Amino acid sequence: MPKLVLVRHGQSEWNEKNLFTGWVDCRLSETGKKEAKRAGELIQEAGIKLDICYTSQLSRAIQTANIALEAADQLWLPVKRSWRLNERHYGALQGLDKANTLEKYGKEKFQTWRRSFNVPPPPIAADGEYSQIGERRYENIDPACIPLAESLELVIVRLLPYWQDEIARDLLDNKVVMVAAHGNSLRALVKHLDNISDEEIAGLNIPTGIPLVYELDENLKPTKPAYYLDPEAAAAGAAAVAAQGQKK
Amino acid sequence: MPKLVLVRHGQSEWNEKNLFTGWVDCRLSETGKKEAKRAGELIQEAGIKLDICYTSQLSRAIQTANIALEAADQLWLPVKRSWRLNERHYGALQGLDKANTLEKYGKEKFQTWRRSFNVPPPPIAADGEYSQIGERRYENIDPACIPLAESLELVIVRLLPYWQDEIARDLLDNKVVMVAAHGNSLRALVKHLDNISDEEIAGLNIPTGIPLVYELDENLKPTKPAYYLDPEAAAAGAAAVAAQGQKK
Repeated sequence: MPKLVLVRHGQSEWNEKNLFTGWVDCRLSETGKKEAKRAGELIQEAGIKLDICYTSQLSRAIQTANIALEAADQLWLPVKRSWRLNERHYGALQGLDKANTLEKYGKEKFQTWRRSFNVPPPPIAADGEYSQIGERRYENIDPACIPLAESLELVIVRLLPYWQDEIARDLLDNKVVMVAAHGNSLRALVKHLDNISDEEIAGLNIPTGIPLVYELDENLKPTKPAYYLDPEAAAAGAAAVAAQGQKK
Repeated sequence: MPKLVLVRHGQSEWNEKNLFTGWVDCRLSETGKKEAKRAGELIQEAGIKLDICYTSQLSRAIQTANIALEAADQLWLPVKRSWRLNERHYGALQGLDKANTLEKYGKEKFQTWRRSFNVPPPPIAADGEYSQIGERRYENIDPACIPLAESLELVIVRLLPYWQDEIARDLLDNKVVMVAAHGNSLRALVKHLDNISDEEIAGLNIPTGIPLVYELDENLKPTKPAYYLDPEAAAAGAAAVAAQGQKK
């Protein structure tokens, strides 16, 4: 039966500095690399034999996949990448310090930008330092697809076609599929798979670096609740994600 | 115009031990990782903007591509892998010490196995320790394709269809293509591109970790001689490869 293994990338250099990242292409920190290695070891220890790996087009997710597949001794798998698996675009917040932003705009606005379902943050200037307009990486996609800011709802809109056309097709072929991506693109996928309401998704936090496994039926519905390969570490990790922005 | 960048993987753990490797999936040594990083830096310094990367299905070529693309800040590129880019299968020599083999069988036989165009080494036993028969990595290919031993001629026979169907198509699309592979699969490709005779190819040694660039016309013929991104290091590297088996 089809199986889906979701891996959220670990700490990046900008996570470490507590900055809003979004589509800015920062790399994994040393801690993030260790998390990726651990993810691969968990896959290996669980005896999961992957058939294919998907990643976003952002380096931190690609590094996570590369390191995890190496640790799982499955480096030889086919790999596909898409901008549709990218992190949510954080608009004008990209490059800002999370704690400063919280202080400046207050908890309500901050939480709305971080967790509301359909309110995007303010848009980034197209020619701004941290805008992705004109980046070579995206030169093969319709320029209208490159966002200036995204809500979670907009992430779902651009992610689902890729799920339907590519990932779902492999799963319907009974493949074991790994997706290495980001907090919000994976929340979008989990919302779809578990049919979570627009309200409830706000409370869902996916921990970094711990593979989350879905066993699916022939209609791609979960046959049982998804499970983390290291449940204790996952609970601690989710709490840490929820507390983000409060540390300085 | 189309451009092809060939990168031979650097030192592997088995190169370090001076063993015949072939299709055995050993990893890069620390030296090999440094070579891969240098290859990526050379690509970056030359201002080469790649469009796609091809690798074999062996970890040491995949690690080379991953590390080089990271160093070149082009980790987001699409990547395709094929067993058709694998190293030559060294048959029963796989796992043997090169210096011991030279001593035991004599220089003539040793050089024939290493450099003759159409004489494969003795075949490996299908159930031998270092045979690839039954390996999960190759479960999607016709089992008849998994070799027990290959000459360079046999490598060309299995490599050319992939060149024609996949790599050439990207080049005809005016793409800049990187191929991260192995000493003999790259010799096979170079023989084809430069129309080198069966006799002359014996003397061609490709150094590790130094990108070799082909600029091609619309018929995929070189418009000028291929060049290394670091010619001095390439000359020294080729001499070192030629001397292999003589050190102990």
